[in-house]
Amino acid sequence: MAASSSSFHLSQALLARAISHHRINSSSDRISLSGISFPSFSGLKSHSSNPSSTKPKPASRRRGGNSVRATAVETLDKTTDISLVEKSINTIRFLSIDAVEKANSGHPGLPMGCAPMGHILYDEVMRYNPKNPAWFNRDRFILSAGHGCMLQYALLHLAGYDSVQEKDLKEFRQWGSRTPGHPENFETIGVEVTTGPLGQGIANAVGLALAEKHLAARFNKPDNEIVDHYTYVILGDGCQMEGISNEACSLAGHWGLGKLIALYDDNHISIDGDTEIAFTESVDKRFEGLGWHVIWVKNGNTGYDEIRAAIKEAKAVKDKPTLIKVTTTIGFGSPNKANSYSVHGSALGAKEVEATRKNLGWPYEPFHVPEDVKKHWSRHTPDGAALEAEWNAKFAEYEKKYKEDAAELKSIISGELPAGWEKALPTYTPESPADATRNLSQQNLNALANVLPGLLGGSADLASSNMTLLKKFGDFQKNTPEERNVRFGVREHGMGAICNGIALHSPGLIPYCATFFVFTDYMRAAIRISALCEAGVIYVMTHDSIGLGEDGPTHQPIEHLASFRAMPNILMLRPADGNETAGAYKVAILNRKRPSILALSRQKLPQLPGTSIEGVEKGGYIVSDNSSGNKPDVILIGTGSELEIAAYAAEDLRKEGKAVRVVSFVSWELFEEQSDAYKESVLPAAVSARVSIEAGSTFGWQKIVGSKGKAIGIDRFGASAPAGKIYKEFGITKEAVVAAAKEIS
Amino acid sequence: MAASSSSFHLSQALLARAISHHRINSSSDRISLSGISFPSFSGLKSHSSNPSSTKPKPASRRRGGNSVRATAVETLDKTTDISLVEKSINTIRFLSIDAVEKANSGHPGLPMGCAPMGHILYDEVMRYNPKNPAWFNRDRFILSAGHGCMLQYALLHLAGYDSVQEKDLKEFRQWGSRTPGHPENFETIGVEVTTGPLGQGIANAVGLALAEKHLAARFNKPDNEIVDHYTYVILGDGCQMEGISNEACSLAGHWGLGKLIALYDDNHISIDGDTEIAFTESVDKRFEGLGWHVIWVKNGNTGYDEIRAAIKEAKAVKDKPTLIKVTTTIGFGSPNKANSYSVHGSALGAKEVEATRKNLGWPYEPFHVPEDVKKHWSRHTPDGAALEAEWNAKFAEYEKKYKEDAAELKSIISGELPAGWEKALPTYTPESPADATRNLSQQNLNALANVLPGLLGGSADLASSNMTLLKKFGDFQKNTPEERNVRFGVREHGMGAICNGIALHSPGLIPYCATFFVFTDYMRAAIRISALCEAGVIYVMTHDSIGLGEDGPTHQPIEHLASFRAMPNILMLRPADGNETAGAYKVAILNRKRPSILALSRQKLPQLPGTSIEGVEKGGYIVSDNSSGNKPDVILIGTGSELEIAAYAAEDLRKEGKAVRVVSFVSWELFEEQSDAYKESVLPAAVSARVSIEAGSTFGWQKIVGSKGKAIGIDRFGASAPAGKIYKEFGITKEAVVAAAKEIS
Repeated sequence: MAASSSSFHLSQALLARAISHHRINSSSDRISLSGISFPSFSGLKSHSSNPSSTKPKPASRRRGGNSVRATAVETLDKTTDISLVEKSINTIRFLSIDAVEKANSGHPGLPMGCAPMGHILYDEVMRYNPKNPAWFNRDRFILSAGHGCMLQYALLHLAGYDSVQEKDLKEFRQWGSRTPGHPENFETIGVEVTTGPLGQGIANAVGLALAEKHLAARFNKPDNEIVDHYTYVILGDGCQMEGISNEACSLAGHWGLGKLIALYDDNHISIDGDTEIAFTESVDKRFEGLGWHVIWVKNGNTGYDEIRAAIKEAKAVKDKPTLIKVTTTIGFGSPNKANSYSVHGSALGAKEVEATRKNLGWPYEPFHVPEDVKKHWSRHTPDGAALEAEWNAKFAEYEKKYKEDAAELKSIISGELPAGWEKALPTYTPESPADATRNLSQQNLNALANVLPGLLGGSADLASSNMTLLKKFGDFQKNTPEERNVRFGVREHGMGAICNGIALHSPGLIPYCATFFVFTDYMRAAIRISALCEAGVIYVMTHDSIGLGEDGPTHQPIEHLASFRAMPNILMLRPADGNETAGAYKVAILNRKRPSILALSRQKLPQLPGTSIEGVEKGGYIVSDNSSGNKPDVILIGTGSELEIAAYAAEDLRKEGKAVRVVSFVSWELFEEQSDAYKESVLPAAVSARVSIEAGSTFGWQKIVGSKGKAIGIDRFGASAPAGKIYKEFGITKEAVVAAAKEIS
Repeated sequence: MAASSSSFHLSQALLARAISHHRINSSSDRISLSGISFPSFSGLKSHSSNPSSTKPKPASRRRGGNSVRATAVETLDKTTDISLVEKSINTIRFLSIDAVEKANSGHPGLPMGCAPMGHILYDEVMRYNPKNPAWFNRDRFILSAGHGCMLQYALLHLAGYDSVQEKDLKEFRQWGSRTPGHPENFETIGVEVTTGPLGQGIANAVGLALAEKHLAARFNKPDNEIVDHYTYVILGDGCQMEGISNEACSLAGHWGLGKLIALYDDNHISIDGDTEIAFTESVDKRFEGLGWHVIWVKNGNTGYDEIRAAIKEAKAVKDKPTLIKVTTTIGFGSPNKANSYSVHGSALGAKEVEATRKNLGWPYEPFHVPEDVKKHWSRHTPDGAALEAEWNAKFAEYEKKYKEDAAELKSIISGELPAGWEKALPTYTPESPADATRNLSQQNLNALANVLPGLLGGSADLASSNMTLLKKFGDFQKNTPEERNVRFGVREHGMGAICNGIALHSPGLIPYCATFFVFTDYMRAAIRISALCEAGVIYVMTHDSIGLGEDGPTHQPIEHLASFRAMPNILMLRPADGNETAGAYKVAILNRKRPSILALSRQKLPQLPGTSIEGVEKGGYIVSDNSSGNKPDVILIGTGSELEIAAYAAEDLRKEGKAVRVVSFVSWELFEEQSDAYKESVLPAAVSARVSIEAGSTFGWQKIVGSKGKAIGIDRFGASAPAGKIYKEFGITKEAVVAAAKEIS
């Protein structure tokens, strides 16, 4: 490698800086660097948590926790010349630098610091098939620190994924390119999930690892472990600070997700500067508390063997997820910007790029991949094909021996729904007993669990209120991972992101999750990513209005229906009774690339005449009508628990001789997608006398009721009292509908 | 105490259960119970984290962490007979049981288990004046596990707060009562913040403790510590599971908030059952990792001296917040329901209430407070008055000696804004340089920091992007708490809730906090509580549209403006230039009981002719107009960065002879509050040709533009590309406005 000595000096300098940051002064932790080829570090010894140890301990580590083992360096079989490894790592660095530079936008610091981890994962550790990125049994990789996406694009490019060609790298962050500003699974084949908002990726990874553990437990046989892959994550300081990551990682520890391996890019820099200003906790100790195995790689910049040994150790720990804290230098290689926030989120600038080229001994033009690096990585195409072929053969064996299981697994892999599944949906007549839609939801979930092998989920510690338990299954737990009731604890945000991971693991996995509707506020960032990344998660949101009563305004949603109706690519469904709840589930199951939110009542509701599954599929439809010629005197529009009120108001008005149409408006999005003719048949333009009633914000209803219509709703916070009393005091009543209808018709 | 022996037997049984749960088998941890009067436990010894200790250790504690000290029992000065303490505690239990029973709704389990902690805090530890709950230097108490609010109502009642009389207890959870279903500061005087949504309270408490530490550092003198109080919290397993609590507690540890003392009700039960099903992390270890002092009270049911000793120890630790893990039995005293989820959230039922009365030896009718208990608590009225009088005398001394400081502190205590403060707001002319509103925001913040002593805040690791640094101040840190730039790290949710705590500490504290607008999704639950609990937090939300460019759809808000416009009691402001930014700040500062969200641009915007502070105060106003008689041909309505586009479109249309009015619609809420006459003067009913333009969801705009108008916006997710390109591709252009205007006018 040309000019490698300058590279060496820089590395040494930066390494020393990283180490001094940790103030390691014990001789047993001394790291000796010996020459250009960066061989294994000598002198690095494991120092265990054994308190009786008589060895001198590191003086005062910056982040507490003296019980974490540093990696033991093992002699691994090396298949690749170290200089080629180094060259490959620098290729990753410069592809990232060059793409950010060309875009004049992006985050070069992380790819430069994490290139060694990235190289080792994609070149040495992970099992995947670049020509079939959807191969079921691939190892999953998540870049939770999504701003560093050029790292992943560079790796996908080297590994031979067709989705990231040289031209794509050159179009980084440009309109219509396959290399957007953060990793987006719907834009770039080979990217598993959508990250960028911090903490989401690590929680997605928990979901992916949960899915693997669940499917492995369900389908693996002593003679055929057909499901068997790891989930790798790179996350940064930002992810660590976010509460969602603590939630998800607490669950990962609880569930003992041994095949989840998270590499924590411990670079001490966040946007505002040194993490000292806001983040001085002991991450090590916290993760030990969460039940993880924790390893510290002190030299993530050039300690390739340390990284390899840590991953090997992590794989050997089967009953716990592993956090590998990898201390790195952000922007490694940049002589003037490394280890500073200035390299985090801006292009280096031509001058510094040049200096970095010189410093790392990189004589190539922008975007160049040296031939030997190219050649080295080219093996992943045949190797990946071979891995998949081997697995296919294994699956053929499996299919021969375990026919039914194979068919079930196949449907999970393909996402093909079993024929006639929708016949399982329960139906109701007006004579069926009144019930809360949360209970009707449970009937649907249990009916569907009989026919949908990929349905699994649970609640954020409200299973008995959200009514989400699948009766024929037990709890998904560390030692019973084959079960399908997931207990998320009071961790709404983590729950949503974990479900995104489950949904994106396999097209046939259909995760649902539940809490009170108002607490979508806790998980909104995850729900938005469901919508963006096309994860068909089903959000079972009960206690959907002031109808929950005494718990009061902190628990009563008001603006939530409106806030989700405004969100792109999501279905907000508010069924009114049994048939509509079944319809909502039909829609939710069919929409595998669009999440659904079901807003469900705590209180009992009657089974209304005129409701139907088919009606729900159209979003809005006529439930009852005594008009003719598509010319009612007035149209009453209700959703969910207020459809009943609209129906009763219509009865009263009809008694007084009015021609009244009642419309259920269960999903605005679905109605919007109908033909103009259908819309006109439900809401004729000529009829401006329209009254809507919904126990939530009236915001947005003007679009439906028009300038001359009336929207009855609640534009204030709720109150603590029995539900009936609040409805009355807030004017969500039949009388109010009748009065409004008379006023305008 | 009558029938105390049955009480004793129960206590003993439950205690044994709680202890066996922890499988403590070391002789040094044996707890001996001796007789009815529950004296100090003997035999309980501190076992420290000293690894060289040769004492036998507890075998395998359920929640890991073997480094946490159990409380050492100290001989404290007892001023109260133990049987009276017990009676007081049972009074708290039965007031809670009776109120829940009467309401047939509520959560008896927590008050029954936490009554000992509650008694000790309110009767023995805390300093407050029940007849002036707003006394500035009071200790703050937060019930983070807000569902247990009957505990707090019972305590306020006993302590002599006028807000909770016997009649109020009898109206628990009823319409119009002062005892709603969760603690609400705006309903019940004496309640500090609004809790219920889990994890919020502990984060609020971090804010309260931050405020105390900040004010103490700013105002205390060696001879006069005028600011000096503690913040106490009770939180439960649910709070512990929520990510927000980890975020806030990580900051509390980082800041060394030594006067924050959190009692963790470790009762092993959440709604879904035993916490074993979803929560097996070592909370102790996690909190040690977060930099807290951790103490374990093994017997929270009857170990009063243990609780006392733990609080004493916590107060002695000055440089760290303390978590006291108090192991309790949920529903303590209920023979058939204690230690089960059934006692968490439902009334006990008449039969079980009776059994509990018998069990705890409670012969009184519902809601009865025994005379000796009443008499005992009655001292808090004179004592509280004396405490305040003493402090007032101290303040008088302070005022004499430190006149200026006293005046400043006074204004923080009273919330009275300094006369003429608004003159500090910067003004701009069309000749002022174009600038991003995020930069203009920083000019305002810095100008206001000169005149508002209570302004402090910061960003979630985006200070240099959100432009929130106050240049004349340093960072609020552990050793520089007198400074005003708060570094929240990447913890949006914790940040919002901490700011709620700061705002509710003193009327004159004006906290602001910042992140990218899209990440309001991470903190929405805290923002909603700002709105509900009337905390005038200022949310500085930059990068407010696709105008942020290359970071792409994960970072580009779309539905966010609509989602906040639908939220009650919050001001959503989107200023267009310098004058409007100043106007937005004026509104935000004046609205001390309503939070404000300022949506600010990343990109440069021109200073537009016609904009004004006064206009912003009206929410919507005419920026330019060439029509007469209030009859324009068309009205163009814009907000924020799109007002410029509307203005340019108007120029074009006017050149073609049209009479065009341009309206800035900076805050829908403020416009809604104007008189009908004013509204008509801006948006005359007769003019139906209206075009709105806003780089966000069109949801809701139909109300403004009417059925015949056009709303130009974005009803899909964004994209990764340079901002100008996205605007063009999405049709957020002058040309689109002109075309729409021509189509309808």
